[in-house]
Amino acid sequence: MRAFEFLYKDFERGLTVVLDKGLPPKYVEDYLKVCGDYIDFVKFGWGTSAVINRDVIKEKINYYKDWDIKVYPGGTLFEYAYVKGKFDEFLDECGKLGFEAVEISDGSSDISLEKRKNAIGKAKDNGFVVLTEVGKKLPEKDKELTIEDRVKLINFDLDAGADYVIIEGRESGKGIGLFDKDGKVKEDELNVLAKNVDINKIIFEAPQKNQQVAFILKFGSSVNLANIAFDEVISLETLRRGLRGDTFGKI
Amino acid sequence: MRAFEFLYKDFERGLTVVLDKGLPPKYVEDYLKVCGDYIDFVKFGWGTSAVINRDVIKEKINYYKDWDIKVYPGGTLFEYAYVKGKFDEFLDECGKLGFEAVEISDGSSDISLEKRKNAIGKAKDNGFVVLTEVGKKLPEKDKELTIEDRVKLINFDLDAGADYVIIEGRESGKGIGLFDKDGKVKEDELNVLAKNVDINKIIFEAPQKNQQVAFILKFGSSVNLANIAFDEVISLETLRRGLRGDTFGKI
Amino acid sequence: MRAFEFLYKDFERGLTVVLDKGLPPKYVEDYLKVCGDYIDFVKFGWGTSAVINRDVIKEKINYYKDWDIKVYPGGTLFEYAYVKGKFDEFLDECGKLGFEAVEISDGSSDISLEKRKNAIGKAKDNGFVVLTEVGKKLPEKDKELTIEDRVKLINFDLDAGADYVIIEGRESGKGIGLFDKDGKVKEDELNVLAKNVDINKIIFEAPQKNQQVAFILKFGSSVNLANIAFDEVISLETLRRGLRGDTFGKI
Repeated sequence: MRAFEFLYKDFERGLTVVLDKGLPPKYVEDYLKVCGDYIDFVKFGWGTSAVINRDVIKEKINYYKDWDIKVYPGGTLFEYAYVKGKFDEFLDECGKLGFEAVEISDGSSDISLEKRKNAIGKAKDNGFVVLTEVGKKLPEKDKELTIEDRVKLINFDLDAGADYVIIEGRESGKGIGLFDKDGKVKEDELNVLAKNVDINKIIFEAPQKNQQVAFILKFGSSVNLANIAFDEVISLETLRRGLRGDTFGKI
Repeated sequence: MRAFEFLYKDFERGLTVVLDKGLPPKYVEDYLKVCGDYIDFVKFGWGTSAVINRDVIKEKINYYKDWDIKVYPGGTLFEYAYVKGKFDEFLDECGKLGFEAVEISDGSSDISLEKRKNAIGKAKDNGFVVLTEVGKKLPEKDKELTIEDRVKLINFDLDAGADYVIIEGRESGKGIGLFDKDGKVKEDELNVLAKNVDINKIIFEAPQKNQQVAFILKFGSSVNLANIAFDEVISLETLRRGLRGDTFGKI
Repeated sequence: MRAFEFLYKDFERGLTVVLDKGLPPKYVEDYLKVCGDYIDFVKFGWGTSAVINRDVIKEKINYYKDWDIKVYPGGTLFEYAYVKGKFDEFLDECGKLGFEAVEISDGSSDISLEKRKNAIGKAKDNGFVVLTEVGKKLPEKDKELTIEDRVKLINFDLDAGADYVIIEGRESGKGIGLFDKDGKVKEDELNVLAKNVDINKIIFEAPQKNQQVAFILKFGSSVNLANIAFDEVISLETLRRGLRGDTFGKI
């Protein structure tokens, strides 16, 4: 039972995707006692999975599974394997390690739409939840994408069978995707996006608190958010419920 | 026994109040072996207490008690309960969970002075240490308060029976209270404040290192500081003792 | 065995020096299961060692030793002891606690070259690995040092027997040493330095990701980096291997 239960009120919580960039295994077990109820997916960021002992990876995934949390390796690892022609080995290894989802992206490489579609399909056929990502890792490349390009790619991915599409924000949340160089949300572009896609299928990377607040105030507590730092999950939950100054009385 | 004991010199340490925004329970037990001697109060930030399992809350409070540390829920949770007319239930639940202090604030809501005074009194009557907070959460509202307003409210709270008064700085320490938009201390206002209140009853929220340094260099190691990140407690202790470059040779 | 082993390719990894500013002991044990293979030295930052229980210090050093990691107390503690005339007691205590290296610096104090040389020699004679540091803690003092001064001091220290020389960057990495006020690497000065010293003996403090990326892209994965935050070790390893967007395809 939750503390201060008498203050609880019903609300619809959006998906929360946490960035794990190398948490220690026993720490994860302990951590989930506090946060486990509020996490839907965990991403082992970019290629971090490939530098960690496989028993540790499996142990961590098992702790997450105990709380019904699905784990996936970052899109950069998919790309690294894909450009080396090792996509089959990649999917096989994901399965063996216990990952239940994969991310298909082209943030660091160029992959044709045809190949992207096939990759999404193959990952689905292998039983994975598929998240794709739209956006480039390098700000100078990312800004070549117009909001119309992004909308088109989002709908392409969903048509190809992706379960969710993530809007790139990186760990910093600055000068990338829908964020200006100070990390502020570009309202105009966000409005275009919201009008042209199914918002329930979109997950916004929003590493900074002011970004989480902006999305919650715009779309409500049901907005899907990703790249949440592991130690900001409880804060995010309070923002979604109006239990922090920034959203107090506004939810 | 402390390492490098022969380097120790006597000094008067001010209060240290740590912000805990959802640390895992076993981690807290482990953490206190390093930091336990240097913490006086722990605040479970804003409404975080209301989204965590009550057994976990109790377990954590017990670990803190083992080191004579008093725990209290953030003022925002008090306000959330108060505006819903649930102040009695709030105090009752705080007692049951093991909290030994409460924070009375109006950072996110408007509470009349009369009601504020009564709330302080009732909390004291129920056996809690009472900390109040002066300042508003939203920068645009906070800056309507002059330094004279703050002084008046501080003394009002102390007259009403508050044990300590906290000067709002938020987690960020920017554009709020005594801090300008870059987080620098406003010297003029600080001087007015220091001249008109009992500094031993004041606790300054000072989340950033440069702020901790500024307060220590101005008031000495005995200054009371709050909103210290959990992983900055050891750093703060070295600042108070001149064991870090910023205060080396100046204490 | 590492996960995704089939993606591994050979490379030469430079030294990684981690800043530990007070991690809890059991956490360290757990943490090393993830990061232990990628750390060469751990610095207990500035004077933090002197405010922590000696049994905790010993316990932590032992966990690090299990992974062949050498631990040393921050240079500021050496300086604090040295200016008090307690250098012998300092070395003795370092040995008793299990430290295998020491840092000789003058970031917060003035120590003559003659004395610096003797301190390096004495620490070596006592069996310690010796790291020295070049740079001042306060930006206004540090900027009085020209790059030529730094080069001269680096070579002086190496001639005096130092094993490695660390280039000051502090925890912040801003407005200090080779970094401008925004934390960008000053290319000109770095080039002068690289031309005039043995780069294999240099360890660059590079707390920020963009700094780690800059050094890796300039000198390759074999560059030695220090003041790495404990939770950025896995990220750094992926940067060294081209497994993160910033260095993907460039290594």
